[in-house]
Amino acid sequence: MILHLKNTISNQDAAKIAAEIKAFHVTSNGTNVLITGSGVKEVPAQISDKVDQFWVFPNDMQLASKSYLPTKREVKIGNVTIGGTTKNTVLIGGPCSVESEEQIRESAKLLVDLGLSTLRGGCYKPRTSPYSFQGMGLDGLKLLAQMREEFGLSVITEARDATHIDEIIEYSDVIQVGAKAMYDQGILRACAKTNKPVLIKRGFGTTLQEFVQAAEFVLSGGNENVILCERGIRTFETGTRFTLDLCGVAWLQEYTNLPIILDPSHAMGYAYGVPVLAKACVAMGIDGLLIEAHRNPKVAKSDASQQLTHQEFTELLNVLRPVAQSVGYQMV
Amino acid sequence: MILHLKNTISNQDAAKIAAEIKAFHVTSNGTNVLITGSGVKEVPAQISDKVDQFWVFPNDMQLASKSYLPTKREVKIGNVTIGGTTKNTVLIGGPCSVESEEQIRESAKLLVDLGLSTLRGGCYKPRTSPYSFQGMGLDGLKLLAQMREEFGLSVITEARDATHIDEIIEYSDVIQVGAKAMYDQGILRACAKTNKPVLIKRGFGTTLQEFVQAAEFVLSGGNENVILCERGIRTFETGTRFTLDLCGVAWLQEYTNLPIILDPSHAMGYAYGVPVLAKACVAMGIDGLLIEAHRNPKVAKSDASQQLTHQEFTELLNVLRPVAQSVGYQMV
Amino acid sequence: MILHLKNTISNQDAAKIAAEIKAFHVTSNGTNVLITGSGVKEVPAQISDKVDQFWVFPNDMQLASKSYLPTKREVKIGNVTIGGTTKNTVLIGGPCSVESEEQIRESAKLLVDLGLSTLRGGCYKPRTSPYSFQGMGLDGLKLLAQMREEFGLSVITEARDATHIDEIIEYSDVIQVGAKAMYDQGILRACAKTNKPVLIKRGFGTTLQEFVQAAEFVLSGGNENVILCERGIRTFETGTRFTLDLCGVAWLQEYTNLPIILDPSHAMGYAYGVPVLAKACVAMGIDGLLIEAHRNPKVAKSDASQQLTHQEFTELLNVLRPVAQSVGYQMV
Amino acid sequence: MILHLKNTISNQDAAKIAAEIKAFHVTSNGTNVLITGSGVKEVPAQISDKVDQFWVFPNDMQLASKSYLPTKREVKIGNVTIGGTTKNTVLIGGPCSVESEEQIRESAKLLVDLGLSTLRGGCYKPRTSPYSFQGMGLDGLKLLAQMREEFGLSVITEARDATHIDEIIEYSDVIQVGAKAMYDQGILRACAKTNKPVLIKRGFGTTLQEFVQAAEFVLSGGNENVILCERGIRTFETGTRFTLDLCGVAWLQEYTNLPIILDPSHAMGYAYGVPVLAKACVAMGIDGLLIEAHRNPKVAKSDASQQLTHQEFTELLNVLRPVAQSVGYQMV
Repeated sequence: MILHLKNTISNQDAAKIAAEIKAFHVTSNGTNVLITGSGVKEVPAQISDKVDQFWVFPNDMQLASKSYLPTKREVKIGNVTIGGTTKNTVLIGGPCSVESEEQIRESAKLLVDLGLSTLRGGCYKPRTSPYSFQGMGLDGLKLLAQMREEFGLSVITEARDATHIDEIIEYSDVIQVGAKAMYDQGILRACAKTNKPVLIKRGFGTTLQEFVQAAEFVLSGGNENVILCERGIRTFETGTRFTLDLCGVAWLQEYTNLPIILDPSHAMGYAYGVPVLAKACVAMGIDGLLIEAHRNPKVAKSDASQQLTHQEFTELLNVLRPVAQSVGYQMV
Repeated sequence: MILHLKNTISNQDAAKIAAEIKAFHVTSNGTNVLITGSGVKEVPAQISDKVDQFWVFPNDMQLASKSYLPTKREVKIGNVTIGGTTKNTVLIGGPCSVESEEQIRESAKLLVDLGLSTLRGGCYKPRTSPYSFQGMGLDGLKLLAQMREEFGLSVITEARDATHIDEIIEYSDVIQVGAKAMYDQGILRACAKTNKPVLIKRGFGTTLQEFVQAAEFVLSGGNENVILCERGIRTFETGTRFTLDLCGVAWLQEYTNLPIILDPSHAMGYAYGVPVLAKACVAMGIDGLLIEAHRNPKVAKSDASQQLTHQEFTELLNVLRPVAQSVGYQMV
Repeated sequence: MILHLKNTISNQDAAKIAAEIKAFHVTSNGTNVLITGSGVKEVPAQISDKVDQFWVFPNDMQLASKSYLPTKREVKIGNVTIGGTTKNTVLIGGPCSVESEEQIRESAKLLVDLGLSTLRGGCYKPRTSPYSFQGMGLDGLKLLAQMREEFGLSVITEARDATHIDEIIEYSDVIQVGAKAMYDQGILRACAKTNKPVLIKRGFGTTLQEFVQAAEFVLSGGNENVILCERGIRTFETGTRFTLDLCGVAWLQEYTNLPIILDPSHAMGYAYGVPVLAKACVAMGIDGLLIEAHRNPKVAKSDASQQLTHQEFTELLNVLRPVAQSVGYQMV
Repeated sequence: MILHLKNTISNQDAAKIAAEIKAFHVTSNGTNVLITGSGVKEVPAQISDKVDQFWVFPNDMQLASKSYLPTKREVKIGNVTIGGTTKNTVLIGGPCSVESEEQIRESAKLLVDLGLSTLRGGCYKPRTSPYSFQGMGLDGLKLLAQMREEFGLSVITEARDATHIDEIIEYSDVIQVGAKAMYDQGILRACAKTNKPVLIKRGFGTTLQEFVQAAEFVLSGGNENVILCERGIRTFETGTRFTLDLCGVAWLQEYTNLPIILDPSHAMGYAYGVPVLAKACVAMGIDGLLIEAHRNPKVAKSDASQQLTHQEFTELLNVLRPVAQSVGYQMV
């Protein structure tokens, strides 16, 4: 249940009430908002005179639900706003991993040349083998920060586990919670305490319901800047790396109020399929795309097969513009 | 292995050679084509002087493979041609089941009013329960034939099992092999002996490789008019009915030479998601869409939740036109 | 809904009543049984005085449901009875495919030597490629019949599609409906009209609910001798061929009244895992096992990797006996 | 590649060599062991005279592989040893969550009364919703420690994320890495630095290969006491909570040298199926079982539906003993 308290009630009193009824307490646009589990179906008697408005839910998808907030939330990434009524589809590009200063600078330049705003690059790679390249770590984060300085780009990078979440929050403009980390409460609870945008990727074995509940961890902790990212689920089909769940995206658009960014690169796993899938994504009227591009994919230290060349990335943007336009959006 | 025999060899001699080496024998554009299993990697010595050209394959995806025929095949559905270089996306509409003359006539009229050409409607429904509505059977087929007469529409309907495949071949313009029937060799081998277009739906538990091999049953039997139809696979996600596998579509576009029609209605299972998914499909540059529409979905005898109203179907066509155009296609 | 009519009502009258209320009509142990869809929750008023007993169901799992018949049904396979209170676990052995008289006779001899009773062997193979070995067809069926004559064995073989179901019913003692054919109403409806036992394999993409509903096609048509066979479902895991769903078996044991035979050979796909999985199956207190064995698996024309040698099969029986005993069953 | 250095080489020199060739370095039974990625197929020339023995691998399953160490590893849990040649199947019982001192003491007493040795109980619950019961945290760990003191039991409990892994290592005898945390390198790397046994649960969307690679994180960091735990994967079937992958267990037994403990409670999700599945598990000759039991499952704060009563747990042990015996094992 979500309860909006009357505006005559102070923040401190709201906090006390929350503690009494074991609810989460956040403030949103000046309103004191209390959130209990969805099992609570009636306003607790002892606070009924303090409640302005309340919402009852069939399950724990509450703050993210359209039945609470029917309009899509807005999130600012640097100078770009997505969601709300903006009709912006942000194209986020960059390599799978930050590998060197030269490499990441070329990526940054590419984006600037194309008029784009947001650079991705992994520093703590959630590899499934200890014997694979694990990322540059803090050195990589510093390179990303340098690119922000030099080029005015926003940067997005991933927390692999809770041991370095503070670094990630410090260095990045958008905190990425990866598919393997999205149940990690150490990460989610830390993200709840900042106001930076948090992009949560759906686990490849995660239901839509669980996915949205991961967002609830951040929202109920007080950070409203949450973006959902579908990046492919694991199915019996192995001809492609994962299966991009666009039925699921239609479901998210119907039932949640959060902006949605799609990642066709990881879903497909092969560069040949990325452009055509990206077109499909953009035609759905989404808020952004994450596309992996590398100056020389063949020598990339991770995800070599799915990264586009810079040439391919440039062409992709050109074919995406009219598709976005055909559904009333623009690529930014 | 596929072998093209020299054009000096008569059809009868080709048939003899095929029998000798236990190969399939078809003629395509005047050429005698022999097909063996992909395990054969070298031209059999005894016929090496009779072979004009040959292709070796890593698996049994042969006639359907782009490495044999790199350009997309053309298929005619009545007056409409799809595939090849046509850049046509045919919108096939109609109800899940033919339920009555009035009902199917309203569907036919809708299509004609919208300038569309092809009517769908199930007569033998592959229900999973014996206690559900099983379709009108032959009476339904006759109603479809009547609509063809009255309105000049092509009709497509589904064979549930081999006991009525002859009826289906007789009455329909496009033979649909449903998701549950696509391993049915009784159906596939019958389809191989006609020249009518065959639309094969992917089973919801079927790999891409197996899917294309179902087409090989028809192609190797001599019918070149095969269309592939992705309609959603079964995954752990149950928020939607199935999961439309657009990564798989990218794979099919890359590796096969067959036209592709998509069915977002069955994948999604809920009308709310059909339009946005249909936009995603069309943006991929596909050859057609199957969309279920019913004059009154609430009382439909099957698939009530996923059928569009006629109003919604009309609006859908309008929003799809610019999307098709944005990728160089037109809706027909 | 299932209705038992009063025993004062004749079979003909029962048939009339069934037609009136659009119900299936079977007789079981002298009782006239009517079955409607599970949507019917109340006894139709016009027949209320003719009904002795009735059962309401939440879904179309009705005749197979323990809430209708709480004890496990008995099925006779030749001289062996399984199910009921027999505590028999029948071990059915034999090759994937009947390949030659010598081959199948060796299999038959092996079974006889081990005191076993039932021989399996495929004649119409549901291969996914037209270029693979498709089985010996009718010639194979005749060889199976010959083995029955010579050795007194029961034989079980599979219908691939409806075009040869009559042959299968004629030649086999147990009709196998394979995983790819289990939605095939041409097969299921034919099986409903015989009294021979029907073993229905679960499709690899089939839910438990749908699986049991396939049995309802046979049961509601009047054949009570139905056996369910779990043989592995398709999941994301590809280290093994399929995933044997023993949670599903626990579910079937809890909710259905049908005997259960398990097929670890197809689930595993590799001979090394068959014995250990077979032990797991037997420990669940099941009614039978289907195990593929071949005199020389390396040269088998199908499923080479998963067939046991005759030596391995013999050893398997020896290790299974104490496991069966430990749960109160015996191998037969 | 795994390399055993000659025993003339000191530990310090081994460490230097490891650094040179960027390998992991552990000592095992007095041998200096170096591990590189499996991409390395030849002994680096500069150290070839220092190598006693080496193993090449097709993938990054190396230290856990039977082709490195063909016999099953032994792991000690308190006074009980599993794996190796012990033929012990340890039955670990206890509630899903530690809820109170009384509750956990009743669990402890039950185990002691049954002659069992190891108590499970969650303190940091990896719930998918922020609004569910999250566990008692450190207070729960202290209660577990108290039970160890009072009853001489070993305790096993789960790390939810890296923020409290130090506590878990301090308070528990076996560190459980849960299904949602098994990619968490913050946890895995911490586990590598202790010598306490680590039980790694397979993620429900995790391949067997990735599962074993999670063990490689711990093994390559120097902790040899790793146990694998299969607890059900997520498939399309929703009649049960997950699908216990016993084909996968056969695969693990064939290819890895690690002890295996199975968790039928989480796989099934319903108490009715736990005993029959447990029998299946034990018949495979496994090293242990994790079974959830609660003094009053109906009021349990988590996993209410799948926990056995103490009475059911007691009966379960009785039916498991003869099954274990039938395959040469004993329940401990």
